Amino acid sequence: MIRLFPREDDFFALFKKQAATVHQGCELLGVMVRDYTDIEQKAKVLRDVEHQGDQITHEIIERLNRTFITPLEREDIHGLAGRLDDVLDSVEAIASRFVLLRIAQPTPQCIALVDIIDRAADEIVKAVDRLKELKTLVTFTIEINRLENEADAISRDVLADLFNGGHEVMDVLRWKEIYGRLEKTADQCEDIANIIESIVLKNS
Amino acid sequence: MIRLFPREDDFFALFKKQAATVHQGCELLGVMVRDYTDIEQKAKVLRDVEHQGDQITHEIIERLNRTFITPLEREDIHGLAGRLDDVLDSVEAIASRFVLLRIAQPTPQCIALVDIIDRAADEIVKAVDRLKELKTLVTFTIEINRLENEADAISRDVLADLFNGGHEVMDVLRWKEIYGRLEKTADQCEDIANIIESIVLKNS
Amino acid sequence: MIRLFPREDDFFALFKKQAATVHQGCELLGVMVRDYTDIEQKAKVLRDVEHQGDQITHEIIERLNRTFITPLEREDIHGLAGRLDDVLDSVEAIASRFVLLRIAQPTPQCIALVDIIDRAADEIVKAVDRLKELKTLVTFTIEINRLENEADAISRDVLADLFNGGHEVMDVLRWKEIYGRLEKTADQCEDIANIIESIVLKNS
Repeated sequence: MIRLFPREDDFFALFKKQAATVHQGCELLGVMVRDYTDIEQKAKVLRDVEHQGDQITHEIIERLNRTFITPLEREDIHGLAGRLDDVLDSVEAIASRFVLLRIAQPTPQCIALVDIIDRAADEIVKAVDRLKELKTLVTFTIEINRLENEADAISRDVLADLFNGGHEVMDVLRWKEIYGRLEKTADQCEDIANIIESIVLKNS
Repeated sequence: MIRLFPREDDFFALFKKQAATVHQGCELLGVMVRDYTDIEQKAKVLRDVEHQGDQITHEIIERLNRTFITPLEREDIHGLAGRLDDVLDSVEAIASRFVLLRIAQPTPQCIALVDIIDRAADEIVKAVDRLKELKTLVTFTIEINRLENEADAISRDVLADLFNGGHEVMDVLRWKEIYGRLEKTADQCEDIANIIESIVLKNS
Repeated sequence: MIRLFPREDDFFALFKKQAATVHQGCELLGVMVRDYTDIEQKAKVLRDVEHQGDQITHEIIERLNRTFITPLEREDIHGLAGRLDDVLDSVEAIASRFVLLRIAQPTPQCIALVDIIDRAADEIVKAVDRLKELKTLVTFTIEINRLENEADAISRDVLADLFNGGHEVMDVLRWKEIYGRLEKTADQCEDIANIIESIVLKNS
């Protein structure tokens, strides 16, 4: 059924729900790396959260198909839902890689990168909360960029360490896989900052 | 010459032609991995198909420049043509990597991933066929997502296998190169599903 | 303060400044690989240029927030500024990798890829110069595609060489890191060609 009088709030409420699920996923990854026990079980819980996120994403797309007038441009709703889904997918993939690659112990730099992603998810939750008001979220973009620079500095230390000659080659490959995905996830958080900034610009 | 009365059908006909070429490229990669003989020759044929695809892409962009009123937004025509071209480029790059990396024999998981990309190309052909009617292709997106999940499960098995300690490091690098590109190509098929879904949403 | 009567020229002038900074970064990387001495110092200079680029990017975004009527769509200004920033980030990251990975000497292929990126930056400067006239820059896209094909051919040679069995595994990893980033940067230059082509199409 096509809704002629859509409740605009629905989309913003669904985005809040989706951002909260992304945040929950990031927190679970944080718990996993800080308390590195029962990791199969912890990866499984994150997988369930990721499935819940998928359902929210599908709900947003379905509602988009049923709704005649939308509070934001249709492709922006589609784009933001897709990018939030990407972050949750990435976080779940990282958790599963600790199991699949038989990582014995997360490094301090790895814990620091997960923490940065967790704080970026915090910022995303706050930005999605304020999306309805279409405020130019200057502090949000600055904070996400700051976190991205922090992640970049850690990634450089990590790279120098991995290539200093003191590691087994297969371990270098293992860690490049984990670190590469952590950096990509930090980038995806920055993409969300950019898409939200672009939505606000378009509608202001 | 600027056309004042464009034949709208032209763009849809060109997209069909381009999708068919993408599909042909995927099928040729399938033939290569299932019957792993004369691979230099098979990679060369795929390279020719990729060049044909390039020409169709250029034809779409040129026609876009000559046409005054377009049946879809100009940047969507540009975007879809570009993303279809990306898939064909990726498929050709994979075929050439089998030759360049001196891969002795494709693995069953590699054949399964090529098969998934082939089925995704099938779905893309069908979606492009129906693009003119601007129907919300719910089954299309569901099917592409299902294929993407299947590809993801295989990729996880592959990763666990590559890091189980039973492979030469250089072989691990070889296969990570091939598998990484196969996964990226599956993702690019999903991008096309998203762009088509977004075009339909924008115009519905 | 919101400007009611914006000077349209400002955005084009800022884009020219940003493109010039990107070009400067590419040139500095060229100097570094051709005269491979004092590389820490050269990487540091490039880092400073990258910070200058960041400031121009922020200036564009801030001006976007303060300006009521813009000469191009807001999200296109945002998108082009972001993509130009990406190229400069990548070029700086490559320079720092030579230091971090303790690369003894750049290869001829590496120098050739840097040269291609440098020529792509040349083309980008020219295209940004003409952006105000919104001309369909056919030669620009053709030249960028030609450069991308050249980069692709070199990357294939490099891959065959890296996997021919004559290199230490850790050196293969080092060079894959450097070459991967060079190829990604060439792709990002192509992305800019696409975004400029798309802006011109949208406004013509």
